Amino acid sequence: MNKFLYAITVLLFTANTFAADVLPSWNNTPTKKSLVEFVAKVTKAGSADYVAPAQRIAVFDNDGTLWAEQPFYFQALFAFDRVKALAPSHPEWKTQEPFASVLKGDMAGALAGGEKALVELIMATHANMTSEEFSSIVREWVTTARHPKTGLLYKEMVYLPMLEVLDYLRANGFKTFIVSGGGIEFMRVFSQEVYGVPPEQVIGSSIKTKFELRDNVPVLVRLPEVNFIDDGAGKPVGIIQHIGQRPIAAFGNSDGDLQMLQWTCAGAGARFCLIVHHTDEKREWAYDRKSPIGKLDKALDEATAKHWTVVDMKNDWNSMFPGKK
Amino acid sequence: MNKFLYAITVLLFTANTFAADVLPSWNNTPTKKSLVEFVAKVTKAGSADYVAPAQRIAVFDNDGTLWAEQPFYFQALFAFDRVKALAPSHPEWKTQEPFASVLKGDMAGALAGGEKALVELIMATHANMTSEEFSSIVREWVTTARHPKTGLLYKEMVYLPMLEVLDYLRANGFKTFIVSGGGIEFMRVFSQEVYGVPPEQVIGSSIKTKFELRDNVPVLVRLPEVNFIDDGAGKPVGIIQHIGQRPIAAFGNSDGDLQMLQWTCAGAGARFCLIVHHTDEKREWAYDRKSPIGKLDKALDEATAKHWTVVDMKNDWNSMFPGKK
Repeated sequence: MNKFLYAITVLLFTANTFAADVLPSWNNTPTKKSLVEFVAKVTKAGSADYVAPAQRIAVFDNDGTLWAEQPFYFQALFAFDRVKALAPSHPEWKTQEPFASVLKGDMAGALAGGEKALVELIMATHANMTSEEFSSIVREWVTTARHPKTGLLYKEMVYLPMLEVLDYLRANGFKTFIVSGGGIEFMRVFSQEVYGVPPEQVIGSSIKTKFELRDNVPVLVRLPEVNFIDDGAGKPVGIIQHIGQRPIAAFGNSDGDLQMLQWTCAGAGARFCLIVHHTDEKREWAYDRKSPIGKLDKALDEATAKHWTVVDMKNDWNSMFPGKK
Repeated sequence: MNKFLYAITVLLFTANTFAADVLPSWNNTPTKKSLVEFVAKVTKAGSADYVAPAQRIAVFDNDGTLWAEQPFYFQALFAFDRVKALAPSHPEWKTQEPFASVLKGDMAGALAGGEKALVELIMATHANMTSEEFSSIVREWVTTARHPKTGLLYKEMVYLPMLEVLDYLRANGFKTFIVSGGGIEFMRVFSQEVYGVPPEQVIGSSIKTKFELRDNVPVLVRLPEVNFIDDGAGKPVGIIQHIGQRPIAAFGNSDGDLQMLQWTCAGAGARFCLIVHHTDEKREWAYDRKSPIGKLDKALDEATAKHWTVVDMKNDWNSMFPGKK
């Protein structure tokens, strides 16, 4: 909906009708109400809480907030698929961890080596190619690979209620950014199509990149070296580097989003911080304080203490993935 | 002008009238014609050279391309002013280089120490404060400090013909980005007001930033450590990090822009690369191959070899700074 149509809609309907019209995948609980009220007050010209469009910056975590993240972060599943695809030219991987476990289909074993193992898997599958080569590998994967449990394409495992939030905020003059621990060039391949977020509004972790002339043709080569980890205390740093100003709204689901939420909601004026709490073991997965993936512990306590909005997925959402009730 | 008005303008006027109407500070030379023809072909729906708005990315160097850069980069002049302002609390600077030279007004002496001296000056004046503190210092400086030769505010020493190019491209559905060796947080303070470029579309050099809780208040602290140098081969890297795609148009003025121009114009489809050549010693400064600031040597040769557009400021522009003919 463009801004003019949107303004007309607001004028024609009463506040109650309007609240029922927007965010149709959200039940009419206090959770939805808190978001709608926030948006109403920051967009109301002349109100004490009014925020000019240039400062209407909203940031969204990706894994577990915009799309699912179980049984492993989807980008790790991409890395596993790449290890299998590349194995014929790496016979040594048959006996070398963490690759050997991946090739045996033992994902838990592959990740038993912790961060070191994960970095090895990422570098072997994400580096030593140009940016354009990497994008085309991800594009192929994201249009064909399917989730082991649901059989859906990964890009179909995005939360419909959150897609509605992205649209709703943009219809109200917000700029929406993704701020994720995931790889920045990985997400950029599908962010526009799936989330309506253009590549320059995606912030994520990265490996180093180097400019090179190859036979006089300029290319950007991805190096097997960590550049930036956009997680935890790294998220506000990633935001200041890329956006250059403090957001007024932040959406996350795990302790990795805590500092982003803290920094966003500590700013002056009206602020909105929301945590997606995975409570729906039937339509999705239920996990929080003890989960190795998407652990939500400290941030859940802080949400209570600071009166942030917490989504109870089971009760606040009437839809989960697009096309699936 | 919005896109609808713009479309109507195009329909109502003949091509010649139109060419005279846009970019009024540009004389009707082949230089202007090359830009207008490029924009016409990439925006013409159905043409072989058509580029969708999402890919209409244009990148601009700042120092020497959008604003002047003599006798020193303006950000170095800001650092000099800060050294003077901070001197009372740093008595040791009276005898310690490069600070002692700055305090004596000997700018050349201050920079005689090369990169090491420059980094020392930058760290002493740009670090050890929060991002918000730094922005407010820059804001104060940019609204009050005046250029030693012209007496103008620095933000008044922007090239009117280039402001017209920024507007013209945006009216044609381009997104305009600044890609500068200058400090990213320095430029962001005035980029919206002066160039119409929002902070998230500014790319530049940076020092490291750290998230910290101070008495439970989250802040971002600027550390005295280089994070990224957005110059030379760093520019395409900065572009892929921030924009995530290759631009179709690039504007620069020195050898520091060479790789950005090479990478932009090596892409498939219609491309536009432009170099601003400082040839006007009367209204501004004339310099190129031998200049310590804004050296233009290799990039000028490459512009000839690759048929990039080269602006002869003296003959192609009928205006220089806004309000000054």
